[in-house]
Amino acid sequence: MGKEITSRAANYSEWYQDLVIKADLAENSAVRGCMVIKPYGYAIWEKMQQALDKMFKDTGHSNAYFPLFIPKSFFAKEAAHIEGFAKECAVVTHYRLRNTKDGKGIEVDPDAKLEEELIIRPTSETIIWNTYRNWIQSYRDLPLLINQWANVVRWEMRTRLFLRTAEFLWQEGHTAHATAEEAVEETRKMLDVYAEFAEKWMGVPVIKGIKTANERFAGAVDTFCIEALMQDGKALQAGTSHFLGQNFAKAFDVKFTNKQGVQEYVWATSWGVSTRLMGALVMAHSDDDGLVLPPKLAPIQVVIIPIYKTDEQLALLSDYALNIKKSLENRGISVKFDNRDTHKPGWKFAEYELKGVPVRIAVGPRDLENNTVEVARRDTKEKSSYQVTDLDIKIENLLNQIQDNIYNKALNFRDNSTWKADSFEEFVDILDNKGGFVYAHWDGTTETELKIKELTKATIRCITLDNKPEDGKCILTGNPSSQRVLFARAY
Amino acid sequence: MGKEITSRAANYSEWYQDLVIKADLAENSAVRGCMVIKPYGYAIWEKMQQALDKMFKDTGHSNAYFPLFIPKSFFAKEAAHIEGFAKECAVVTHYRLRNTKDGKGIEVDPDAKLEEELIIRPTSETIIWNTYRNWIQSYRDLPLLINQWANVVRWEMRTRLFLRTAEFLWQEGHTAHATAEEAVEETRKMLDVYAEFAEKWMGVPVIKGIKTANERFAGAVDTFCIEALMQDGKALQAGTSHFLGQNFAKAFDVKFTNKQGVQEYVWATSWGVSTRLMGALVMAHSDDDGLVLPPKLAPIQVVIIPIYKTDEQLALLSDYALNIKKSLENRGISVKFDNRDTHKPGWKFAEYELKGVPVRIAVGPRDLENNTVEVARRDTKEKSSYQVTDLDIKIENLLNQIQDNIYNKALNFRDNSTWKADSFEEFVDILDNKGGFVYAHWDGTTETELKIKELTKATIRCITLDNKPEDGKCILTGNPSSQRVLFARAY
Repeated sequence: MGKEITSRAANYSEWYQDLVIKADLAENSAVRGCMVIKPYGYAIWEKMQQALDKMFKDTGHSNAYFPLFIPKSFFAKEAAHIEGFAKECAVVTHYRLRNTKDGKGIEVDPDAKLEEELIIRPTSETIIWNTYRNWIQSYRDLPLLINQWANVVRWEMRTRLFLRTAEFLWQEGHTAHATAEEAVEETRKMLDVYAEFAEKWMGVPVIKGIKTANERFAGAVDTFCIEALMQDGKALQAGTSHFLGQNFAKAFDVKFTNKQGVQEYVWATSWGVSTRLMGALVMAHSDDDGLVLPPKLAPIQVVIIPIYKTDEQLALLSDYALNIKKSLENRGISVKFDNRDTHKPGWKFAEYELKGVPVRIAVGPRDLENNTVEVARRDTKEKSSYQVTDLDIKIENLLNQIQDNIYNKALNFRDNSTWKADSFEEFVDILDNKGGFVYAHWDGTTETELKIKELTKATIRCITLDNKPEDGKCILTGNPSSQRVLFARAY
Repeated sequence: MGKEITSRAANYSEWYQDLVIKADLAENSAVRGCMVIKPYGYAIWEKMQQALDKMFKDTGHSNAYFPLFIPKSFFAKEAAHIEGFAKECAVVTHYRLRNTKDGKGIEVDPDAKLEEELIIRPTSETIIWNTYRNWIQSYRDLPLLINQWANVVRWEMRTRLFLRTAEFLWQEGHTAHATAEEAVEETRKMLDVYAEFAEKWMGVPVIKGIKTANERFAGAVDTFCIEALMQDGKALQAGTSHFLGQNFAKAFDVKFTNKQGVQEYVWATSWGVSTRLMGALVMAHSDDDGLVLPPKLAPIQVVIIPIYKTDEQLALLSDYALNIKKSLENRGISVKFDNRDTHKPGWKFAEYELKGVPVRIAVGPRDLENNTVEVARRDTKEKSSYQVTDLDIKIENLLNQIQDNIYNKALNFRDNSTWKADSFEEFVDILDNKGGFVYAHWDGTTETELKIKELTKATIRCITLDNKPEDGKCILTGNPSSQRVLFARAY
């Protein structure tokens, strides 16, 4: 093989890193904190994009594109936003290089200093709301439902492929509404879109909730989120949807004339998911042999591998395999027939296992005689012999089963890793020895939240949307609490 | 209306600017030289992307993503490249802002200076070939056929929406090959893909050719291009495909072991088209009333407008129109039914004319009685009454006719604007009084090329690929020439 992957038990973090690199998803680049997304990884991201983009369009949104650069002064306009975003960022100060005097190199031309520095967008609320000022005059211009697919930059000090990188790819929705109610409805609608995508496409069950004030997006009134659980018992925030109130409308003076002819500030939302989802996908399902991809996001859903000794056998098997390939493709299944003579079947088996291809079909001379194929599932590693009759339908059903199984497995794992803690000792014990989500009472103060984080490294992931009121006492302070909140250590 | 557009005759340049803004394609942003691509403009760009992306994949390419930032030192590695690209660029020098002492603003934190400045990519050869060094060891790793969809930045001093902007969107293909022949073949293949896209999708006829040394891409051995003619008689370079030889392989030390076990430098190509194509699309076909979009790239192919006096009439017409809409959509035609009661039919007619919607269907009470609709073509402005029987097939045929007509009209215009000049006087006379492409003899020197440009503002667009040898004398110097080259004033 030569592609040894650290086991999850030995070192989960190294396992993740090994997998991302050895399965050809991404790698670190020459630029600190920036990754190269390799073709196989990008093909998965494209499938995510296509599915999400359709969901956005089906809910009435259009795509547009706004500048990469944000004038420094724009950040100063929304007080909370600046604190959250303008600090760790890439700053463009000059627009020209020149040759060095010795002629051997290039250097920044001091004469080409920008009057105002430009920030590489860490998120685009400011530049977009500055634009919306000219787009919105009347209630007839609302709602304005726009999404952007873009790269953004946040100068993270500690980076990890997909999970936290200085540059990442994402989509950011930015909508404008006539009323608070409508904006809140939009915020929740897009949270539901994200949850549906995570569960139906990625096979990752998520908990929908609302962030505490401390974890809120810088500039938001409320931040909603979906939280997923990884196999190491750590949570991962997979998407956020923000109700921004009138904060950005006020900062950028965006008003509309309502039906009564009165000028009002516009209500806003923003929502985003990023290439971080790739990290979630890898960590939620994969095993010590490689990726486990849900069929709906797998660039190759079925691989067919011929097992032969002679060229004559290969010729016969190729006909057989290509017929199967064609019938599967007619059902919209993506199939690769790997007839390379440079690699042995065993090598290929391991390679597609590593790459997470959901179904492997092996065909040998005996299959030809018996009109059979050997079908192996990546998720359970079960192998069975199938008659070729109606193989396309059988494989389609199998892919659906695998999609469901991957989700159910993750759901069971999460259910079995979700706890209640009623004392601080119990809380710490669960975090240290079991991991997972912990529902516990909290007194509602940021002070307590931060103290718990300091003591345990666990954060409040969210107050779940389906939360039921329950009287109790804060696990740290013993002060009264009216509901449990969801804690976990998190990525 | 309120959306007056300058006529082409009055001021072609203002006509273009008016059209781009008033048809909601794009606008200037708060950041110098950067545009906002509005939803309607972006929808056209998405259609371009989809068509091109499919063509790239059908020719064996995969997408990937490389960093936005390029370390300054990377540019120093390829001598010609640095001259062409590293000068006018956005330079990131710092990675943090801080509050000003008075607490009222933010400023660059001088302690957060990067050790090495980062350049926002103006094109990605350097960062990509630095990456390819690790991806390519053996001939088995070749060819490597990769494309990237990305934003790039070139600090242009004079910008125009879509045609020349500081930030623009594009795709850049970067391929690696074992032999020069194969790399040249790839260069030519992608040029053909671009030409096919321009002609079949955009309806813009193009001339394929090779650039002179002076117009070559910085770092290329040969640059191939497609050149289109705009309605004002100026040429526009619509796409380029470069044979890079071993220049970048040598600069970044990318070698492979060939079948004979010998180490060789890899051969390279790169090729790109950008949002500049949007400018070409607008300028090639549109008229004084607005955009004229080829059906294959029109976000809305058919608009249906009800003409009514009473609510009862509208209800009946809506049923009628929605049936038509459904039958057209079943054939894959994108249809908008505009039943807004806030605007009059005349306003809507003008609006969709401005937006370039290829086919307008108007339905009124008399149509209901007669089972007819009124069909208007955007390209010729012809109106006819159609029986609704098989309307879907008739409209599909009409859309194909419009696509062809738009192309043929542009082709006729180009043919009628293509000249031969045999003296410098004749050359200048054509440029000043007729415009268009001029085939003329040139002595082959950069000196003459630059002198002609200085005297006439015309440049050599290319040496056409189907050029026939022909003895003649350079129009400027009278020195011997073996072929005519293609001149024009250009965007």
